[in-house]
Amino acid sequence: MIEYRNLRVALLGAGSVGAQVVALLTEHGEELANRAGAGLELVGVAVRDVDAPRTTAIPRELLTTDAESLIVGADIVIELIGGIEPARTYILQALNSGADVITANKALIATHGPELFEAAEQVGAQLYYEAAVAAAIPIIRPLRDSLAGDRVKRILGIVNGTTNFILDRMDTEGDTLESALAAATELGYAEADPTADIGGYDAAQKAAILASLAFHTTVPIEDVYREGITEITAGQVESARKAGYVIKLLAICERMTAADGTEGVSARVYPALVPRTHPLAAVHAAKNAVFIEAEAAGDLMFYGAGAGGRETASAVLGDLVSAARRHVVGGPGVAESTHANLPLLPISSISTRYQITLEVVDEPGVLAAIATLFSQYGVSVETVSQSVRVVGVGEAVATATLVIGTHEASEAHLSSTVVALEKSDAVVTVTSVLRVEGL
Amino acid sequence: MIEYRNLRVALLGAGSVGAQVVALLTEHGEELANRAGAGLELVGVAVRDVDAPRTTAIPRELLTTDAESLIVGADIVIELIGGIEPARTYILQALNSGADVITANKALIATHGPELFEAAEQVGAQLYYEAAVAAAIPIIRPLRDSLAGDRVKRILGIVNGTTNFILDRMDTEGDTLESALAAATELGYAEADPTADIGGYDAAQKAAILASLAFHTTVPIEDVYREGITEITAGQVESARKAGYVIKLLAICERMTAADGTEGVSARVYPALVPRTHPLAAVHAAKNAVFIEAEAAGDLMFYGAGAGGRETASAVLGDLVSAARRHVVGGPGVAESTHANLPLLPISSISTRYQITLEVVDEPGVLAAIATLFSQYGVSVETVSQSVRVVGVGEAVATATLVIGTHEASEAHLSSTVVALEKSDAVVTVTSVLRVEGL
Repeated sequence: MIEYRNLRVALLGAGSVGAQVVALLTEHGEELANRAGAGLELVGVAVRDVDAPRTTAIPRELLTTDAESLIVGADIVIELIGGIEPARTYILQALNSGADVITANKALIATHGPELFEAAEQVGAQLYYEAAVAAAIPIIRPLRDSLAGDRVKRILGIVNGTTNFILDRMDTEGDTLESALAAATELGYAEADPTADIGGYDAAQKAAILASLAFHTTVPIEDVYREGITEITAGQVESARKAGYVIKLLAICERMTAADGTEGVSARVYPALVPRTHPLAAVHAAKNAVFIEAEAAGDLMFYGAGAGGRETASAVLGDLVSAARRHVVGGPGVAESTHANLPLLPISSISTRYQITLEVVDEPGVLAAIATLFSQYGVSVETVSQSVRVVGVGEAVATATLVIGTHEASEAHLSSTVVALEKSDAVVTVTSVLRVEGL
Repeated sequence: MIEYRNLRVALLGAGSVGAQVVALLTEHGEELANRAGAGLELVGVAVRDVDAPRTTAIPRELLTTDAESLIVGADIVIELIGGIEPARTYILQALNSGADVITANKALIATHGPELFEAAEQVGAQLYYEAAVAAAIPIIRPLRDSLAGDRVKRILGIVNGTTNFILDRMDTEGDTLESALAAATELGYAEADPTADIGGYDAAQKAAILASLAFHTTVPIEDVYREGITEITAGQVESARKAGYVIKLLAICERMTAADGTEGVSARVYPALVPRTHPLAAVHAAKNAVFIEAEAAGDLMFYGAGAGGRETASAVLGDLVSAARRHVVGGPGVAESTHANLPLLPISSISTRYQITLEVVDEPGVLAAIATLFSQYGVSVETVSQSVRVVGVGEAVATATLVIGTHEASEAHLSSTVVALEKSDAVVTVTSVLRVEGL
């Protein structure tokens, strides 16, 4: 066995990821030392309650409730507490003392990233966060390093396993949103309060992180446009299938030019129609995938488990080996990259295709009236399909269902069109408006 | 604009990749400098003939036939000549003078990797080769860095675009191998002499590189087991489809234990049956994908373009930015990693599932005789399907087709079984033996 100098590693948090980090460090200690060029000595694990029951055995003498003392003297600090505080304070303490920090905390990176990266840069420390997006799927490093010589045009990401499980189940089993969510909860994919997932908040945090990284631009989480999947109906999923689409909750990051010529970036999250022939359509159950369109590299996709204690621990340990190698080599690493500093464009600036489903009065001339309305607002119609509904006894008017597919149109024009449709006498109701992505 | 120190970059070769590297360096020079933290000054492009016609304009004053003089004084040398010599000599010259080297040369890395990595280590230089496997798909860096804290169990790679195009065409269009190859040639996917691709030699080089990297072990190219796709028939592809499989040429790298208890690695290339539900089955046309099974991370897949001048140039420039960052930071990088040094196991050591198609004499007792033969050799049969062929006028015996699917069996046992089948009176001919992977 080769003798290395030891690096002192402090772990904050011993939840499902933390426990797996301890287990893997123990199982593969010598192998990791060989890869890192340094021994990785776990000097302690900070927890709220040293006597709390744990699924994985952590040696009692490693546990402490005194995170601040543990951080003092650590070469590398791994933060797996989650949430904003006290994680933020501990990370700042660690960085200010010159330690490298590894975190899986997407909420913290998305909301306080710039503050943390600046603190790291001040002292020449490094902040690693591969585990913060899509768990074990390498995505931070490919974006930061592998594509460093290219220009990312667009990212389409399935970055929330819970919502993908629900939408996949609605698609493959014909479930309603409610029953699919119940299944997700039963299988442990959804939390007791599923708001962060189904509301799109979790995906929005990841969109902010990915957009910042891909476009070298600070993207504040509060400026990410967000729609969840709560309004998605079994009928929409069924119609999508018939039209050759599947509905996926996408985190979209795009480099684009607004109508006024402003070059900027868009970061947004919403359920969208994805063609069944697109690689993202084959991402089933709770899997994640990030599809990247780059100028020179063309289309790339990264696929894998987007959650799970052991999977996330794999990403944390990859960062740990990288951090250790940097300690062995010496010198500062690469700081946060926001030199491009492009403006974040609002949702109204984006252009995409849309599918609008309308319940209309079934009278002569209605189709022409609606087509005219679309063209008045500058939205070009590509496809129209109509199905006439049989009038039930006692119903006032005969209605028909129109499904209209548009050519690429701006969100601003489309929104105006929908407002006008809702006011139109010909339209009984606008049933569904969905964006089509991945074409 | 920020002022940086300039790094001197020498380019060897101005073929389709080299020309795109020049174009991207010119288009995105300032952006790349911001990312690298250093200016990237292209000091010259070494070519065989400065007056040869080129598709992309390279300034005449950059061109030189004197590669050796160009290398002197370069901080970073990009080798895109291909082949073994003079590429090897130039790279050694560059490394020995302390320059970092970037190469897309899979043949050279697969055959002379250890020599080159050692030369780099001697002087603290770094050798980058992300573009050598699967072009723009980040795979070297994820294996080396992102999965550095994990243990790779198996890699299944579609790493040759030409053969994937041919097999996909046979599957989707019902083409024969010959007509699919003709289409590949016409579309520019196959070279005039397609031996390197369809013989599996190109995929074997990539398997050697991936296995070395994944298992921290030197894997000599001559020890990689290799079968090409030249024997694959339209009938086999058709049978595979009916059984729920697609035939893909796979590069397989596996960490395993041989029957005698030896822990080692297997690197092999052959056409295999892949279940249609496997993510690799959805890799169409000339696309590449690398599927990685890791102990903690679970299943990961990296998908994208595996060839093309601009796509490969993207990977080269990613390496260039990494190399430049290292120059700015100072200190040596991470050398070749062969500390694990596991033995490379022969093909006879592997275990997988098999599908064997037999033409047998259609007589009572034949099925029992064949089943007995399998069990004598320790191969457990999972499925048998039989189709009786109508005897043509003038034909001597009635025969039937048996398709036998086995449970996992060792290649050694399976080989002995096939030899015995061929000698058996009950068997007219062994039509097809295919391995099933991805289960």
